[in-house]
Amino acid sequence: MRILVLGGDGYLGWPTALHLSMGGHDVHVADNLVRRTYDDELGVTSLVPIASLERRVAVWRQVTGRDIPAHIGDLTDPVFTRTLVGEVRPDAIVHFAEQRSAPYSMIDQAHAVYTQSNNVIGTLNVLYAIADVDPTIHLVKLGSMGEYGTPNIDIEEGWLEITHKGRTDTVLYPKRPGSFYHLSKVHDSHNIEFACRTWNLRATDLNQGIVYGQETDETRLDPELATRFDYDAVFGTVLNRMVIQAVCGHPLTVYGSGHQVRGMLDIRDTVECIRLAIEHPAHLGEFRVFNQFTEEFSVLSIAELIRLTYPGAVRIANIENPRVEAAEHYYHAVHSRLVDLGLEPHRLDDTLIGSLFAVAERHKERADPDLFEPSVEWRATSSRVGPSAVPAHAA
Amino acid sequence: MRILVLGGDGYLGWPTALHLSMGGHDVHVADNLVRRTYDDELGVTSLVPIASLERRVAVWRQVTGRDIPAHIGDLTDPVFTRTLVGEVRPDAIVHFAEQRSAPYSMIDQAHAVYTQSNNVIGTLNVLYAIADVDPTIHLVKLGSMGEYGTPNIDIEEGWLEITHKGRTDTVLYPKRPGSFYHLSKVHDSHNIEFACRTWNLRATDLNQGIVYGQETDETRLDPELATRFDYDAVFGTVLNRMVIQAVCGHPLTVYGSGHQVRGMLDIRDTVECIRLAIEHPAHLGEFRVFNQFTEEFSVLSIAELIRLTYPGAVRIANIENPRVEAAEHYYHAVHSRLVDLGLEPHRLDDTLIGSLFAVAERHKERADPDLFEPSVEWRATSSRVGPSAVPAHAA
Repeated sequence: MRILVLGGDGYLGWPTALHLSMGGHDVHVADNLVRRTYDDELGVTSLVPIASLERRVAVWRQVTGRDIPAHIGDLTDPVFTRTLVGEVRPDAIVHFAEQRSAPYSMIDQAHAVYTQSNNVIGTLNVLYAIADVDPTIHLVKLGSMGEYGTPNIDIEEGWLEITHKGRTDTVLYPKRPGSFYHLSKVHDSHNIEFACRTWNLRATDLNQGIVYGQETDETRLDPELATRFDYDAVFGTVLNRMVIQAVCGHPLTVYGSGHQVRGMLDIRDTVECIRLAIEHPAHLGEFRVFNQFTEEFSVLSIAELIRLTYPGAVRIANIENPRVEAAEHYYHAVHSRLVDLGLEPHRLDDTLIGSLFAVAERHKERADPDLFEPSVEWRATSSRVGPSAVPAHAA
Repeated sequence: MRILVLGGDGYLGWPTALHLSMGGHDVHVADNLVRRTYDDELGVTSLVPIASLERRVAVWRQVTGRDIPAHIGDLTDPVFTRTLVGEVRPDAIVHFAEQRSAPYSMIDQAHAVYTQSNNVIGTLNVLYAIADVDPTIHLVKLGSMGEYGTPNIDIEEGWLEITHKGRTDTVLYPKRPGSFYHLSKVHDSHNIEFACRTWNLRATDLNQGIVYGQETDETRLDPELATRFDYDAVFGTVLNRMVIQAVCGHPLTVYGSGHQVRGMLDIRDTVECIRLAIEHPAHLGEFRVFNQFTEEFSVLSIAELIRLTYPGAVRIANIENPRVEAAEHYYHAVHSRLVDLGLEPHRLDDTLIGSLFAVAERHKERADPDLFEPSVEWRATSSRVGPSAVPAHAA
């Protein structure tokens, strides 16, 4: 199939493009490269050095003989988006191209507005481009398990059958997320469901858990194919960040009690889930939701696992939670639809963590320990990180 | 109380400002005057001539001796919004300042993007301004009954208690609206609920039905205090439009079967509901939702009522439905919370319709019958109305 990966230069977009290319698909990537600009804004770098997109694509061609054409542009530009979809004419679009950090969206007013307008308008433009160019294009959109929040009932996969006052309906699962970023994904989901219902489009919304890991079968083929490894408090997700904290001899920072439970998955399962969703597309008119994670962990249990696994002394520091979220809560989320399609999950065990320690050790001199500390405060409307403006070309 | 009415130059914002001013409150209005620009873009005018905002405010002062300071600016400008709230320092903000037409939002990609970014970003800026200036300011936000769509279960007031797999939670009522406009209001509701939960703000979300009528006790005091009376297929809502069609000898255009049921209310109840919500504010941290309508009617029954009431021949024309919506559906929506606060609804009867006929007769030579016909097609991504761009100063 011909597949267009939006956000194909990012932490997960790049490995996904490689996995689909290796799987025999004709892959194109598009990106505005803004993720690299966030690094400049925040004074951060990926722990693992990453090559330019141009270089990545060239190395992939050298290593495998496969082409991945790269298109540079911004989805909030409707002309770029319409032209891109019209020229590539994909069978499926994988849409990673959103600002994806909850703390980044909570820095201040400008970052909240940037996150919501960038994500919502970009996705609207993609929907219009699909409807105009070819309504049978399957949209595979990255959402987040964080959209659901922590309801006191089981989390189903996107839809919920409700009986109320003796009548029954199947409704979109009600969501109460915890950041302006997660809210932007909720807005997207509503917009996409409407487009499927109104224009007969087809879409798969992947409500993804927290991804850990940094290597896939494909990125390991050459150091210049590496993807990002973020450890800072804004873009570094919990397990990856703690691995690097351990290696740097820094306490593992656990927000609050650490009893918050979250769904998580291995980066190798992310790329495989997307392949499965593409190769088993939604029906025309269908808005389909998969919960894309493999195991549930509390933040504290992740810290304990790292402390037990790391071959050295590790301290766990419970710090005040900068986020507003329930410290103790029920959590049980269904996640069977991707397994039904054939996903064989990688379980989190010390093999994976061991390989992550090795990656972190190789590059630990690149880490700036100051960046481990939370710099964004949910309760404040203006946080101490960054200037009070988004990057000029991103605004 | 000091009250800031955002969108105070519009169909409902202006009468609300007058009603609150007459009720003894210290009222300020703010508006970017863009509603008048939509008229220019679409080649439409209000059937009833309306004075400029400057003139309206001057006449109100002459007639009542009361001042309503007017602030001109755009809520998507964060500096304007922050300065406005900081200078007025209201006890409550009534927020009407959104693009409020479903067909307008469905004209094409540019109008969909404009509607969602204008509405969502404007409201985000209001939330940040409240949080920064004074988190105790009560936000009274205009939503729409159309946000809910037509679920097969009873529509509750914003929240729903669910029992699922033996566990119970109270969740935001799940919504499946029918246009990018209605979706923008759903996005707003999610953002506002988050701000209440995270910053301890307080808000009342008024999910309003379709408003009919054109006169209130206050607008009747002088012809130059009149509010808009829209009859075109883009901004004219169903009952008002049909009254003008009857007076012009034009068939009443019923979309599809006309069995679509909607909640409706008299404009005099709109302004009173808002007074009640303000004078009985939400608690700090509370996100409260009222369903603001008084009676349910099918579109066809409205047409029949007008045909029976109008002292002349009236034909009803069922035309193809340009919208994508269920032709036959269950509809029952709870709407008791405003009545609990003291609302005494005006029922739709021939007295009101009779007075609307009189208003329409006085101005019927201003109507352009071409504008009765639907010009926006939900199934198309580009409709025949208007240029393919939003007004320059609105973009």
